[in-house]
Amino acid sequence: MEDPDFSLAHCRVAVVGLGLMGGSLALALKGHCRELIGLDASPEALAYALQHQVINEASTFESVAASADLIILATPVRSILAYLEQLTQSKLSDRQPVILDIGSTKTAIVAAMQDLPSNFQPIGGHPMCGKETGGIQHADAELYRNKTFVLCPLARTSPKTLALAQEVVRAVGANVLELDAEQHDIFAALISHLPYTVATALMRTVIEQGHDALWQMAASGFRDTTRLAASDLAMMSDILLTNRAAVLKALAAYKTELDTLTNAIESGDATTLRSVLEGAQHKRSELFK
Amino acid sequence: MEDPDFSLAHCRVAVVGLGLMGGSLALALKGHCRELIGLDASPEALAYALQHQVINEASTFESVAASADLIILATPVRSILAYLEQLTQSKLSDRQPVILDIGSTKTAIVAAMQDLPSNFQPIGGHPMCGKETGGIQHADAELYRNKTFVLCPLARTSPKTLALAQEVVRAVGANVLELDAEQHDIFAALISHLPYTVATALMRTVIEQGHDALWQMAASGFRDTTRLAASDLAMMSDILLTNRAAVLKALAAYKTELDTLTNAIESGDATTLRSVLEGAQHKRSELFK
Repeated sequence: MEDPDFSLAHCRVAVVGLGLMGGSLALALKGHCRELIGLDASPEALAYALQHQVINEASTFESVAASADLIILATPVRSILAYLEQLTQSKLSDRQPVILDIGSTKTAIVAAMQDLPSNFQPIGGHPMCGKETGGIQHADAELYRNKTFVLCPLARTSPKTLALAQEVVRAVGANVLELDAEQHDIFAALISHLPYTVATALMRTVIEQGHDALWQMAASGFRDTTRLAASDLAMMSDILLTNRAAVLKALAAYKTELDTLTNAIESGDATTLRSVLEGAQHKRSELFK
Repeated sequence: MEDPDFSLAHCRVAVVGLGLMGGSLALALKGHCRELIGLDASPEALAYALQHQVINEASTFESVAASADLIILATPVRSILAYLEQLTQSKLSDRQPVILDIGSTKTAIVAAMQDLPSNFQPIGGHPMCGKETGGIQHADAELYRNKTFVLCPLARTSPKTLALAQEVVRAVGANVLELDAEQHDIFAALISHLPYTVATALMRTVIEQGHDALWQMAASGFRDTTRLAASDLAMMSDILLTNRAAVLKALAAYKTELDTLTNAIESGDATTLRSVLEGAQHKRSELFK
C-alpha cells in the first residue's frame, strides 16, 4: 500500500470472521473499498457470504495476511488473539497491512497487537452495536449506522493508520470515540458486560422456580430486560474471561446498588424508596427519547 | 343491573384512573358496552379523555359508585386501596355493581375487596402489559391484545361476576389466567417487579460512575436492559411497598444467581462459565421467537 493511495477506496480489505458483526461490516463497506475478501471457520457461513455477495472472494488467513491492505478481525476475542499470534509468527515483509479488530474487549488484544512484527500497523476497535441473534444470515448493512465505534490507538499506531480506521468508521455510518484500551474495558464492563450478566442472572432466577405460569405472565418488560441473555455464548464467555477484573468490579458496584434498593424496599417507607428510584427514572427517561 | 341483561353490552362501565392502562382499557372497550364514563385526579388527563372521546362522560367517584354497573379501578395500587375504603364506607343499596381492579399487586387489594359491603361484587385483575411511557396520551386500544390478563376471584366472587370479568378480558383481546392473589404476587414479583428493580440498580450503577463517555457507549443492549427503570414512579413505589415480602424474596433468589455467575467469572474457567450461561441462553432464545 503506497502513500498517495492510502485511502479505503484503494484497499483490498479482508474481513476475518463472517458472523453478524463481520458480515454486517462487509455489507456496509461495499462500494467503499477496492476489494472485499473474507473467511470464516464455518463452511456454511462462508458459502452464504459468497452466495449473497457479502464478499467478492473467499480466502485463507495465510493469503489474507500476504495480500490484504486492511485486515479486519471480527471473531470472538480469544480467536482474535489466536490470529494475532499467527501474525506474530509470520516473517517480516515490505508490506505494511493495517490490522483493525472489532473485538468486544480491548486490553488483551491491544497488548497482543503491541507485540506484532513492526511491518504490521495495528489499531483496536469496538463498535457499540449488535443484535442478540448472531450469524451472517442476520447481517445488516445498517447495523453500524449512527452507532458509537470506539477506536483504541496503540503507542505504535501511526497517524495514517488512525486515519484509515476513522475512514472505515465513517464509511459504515458510525461515530468515532477514541479511548485507551483499559478505559474502554472498564466502560464496556459497566455498559455492556454487566447488563448481559444481569439479564442472565434474571433468566436463571425465573428458570429456577420451575413454574410454567411464570412464562405466561412474562410480558414486554421481562422480554426486554432479559434480551441480552440470548447473546452468542462463545462471544460472551470470551468477553467475560478476557475482561474479568473490570466485570467483577462492575458486578461489585452493581451489588452495592442492589443492596441500597433492597434496604429501601425493606424500610417500607415511600419517601426513602422514591429517593432511590427517581434519579434512575429521570436519567433513563431523558437518555433514550 | 338485572340478571337477563348481565352482559358487558348492557353495562354502564366506569373507568377510575385514566392513565396509560385505564385509558387503553377504555379505548379497547369502546363499542363493547352501553356507556363509558370515567374520572381522573388530573384535570388535564380528564380533559384529554373527553376531547379524544376515550370516555363518553366525566364523572365523580360518588356518582360512579351510585350509577355504574361495572367499576374498573385503574390507578396505582395504594390509590385503588383508598377507593375501596370509600366504597366500604358507602351505605348498602339494591344495586350490585361489579368491582374489577387492574392494579399490579393483588394480595392487599383482594383483602380489602373481601371487606366490601355485600352488595358490591368484587374480583381482582392484572393485565400483563404496559409501556414505560405512562399517561393517557400514550393510550392504545391494542395494548391488551394477545396479552395475559390475570384474574383473581375471591371466595365471595359469584360465577356471574367472574363471567363478566372474563368478558372484559376477551373484549380487549387478552387471554385469561386465573390465579389466587398470593400466587399472583409471588409470580409478579419474579417476572415484573424484580426486572424493574434490576433495571433501576443497573441505571444507578452507571450514573454513580459519573463519566459522560459511558452514555456515548450505551447501545441497544443497555437501552433494553434498563427500559423498565423509566416506569412511572408512583405506580412502581406502590407496587414495591404493597408486594414487599414477595419482592424481597425474589431479590434474595436473584442475588444467589448473581453470586453463582460472579463465582463462575472469577474461576476464569471457560467450561464452568459456559455451564452457568447456557441454560439461560437456550431458554431466552426459545421464549420470544
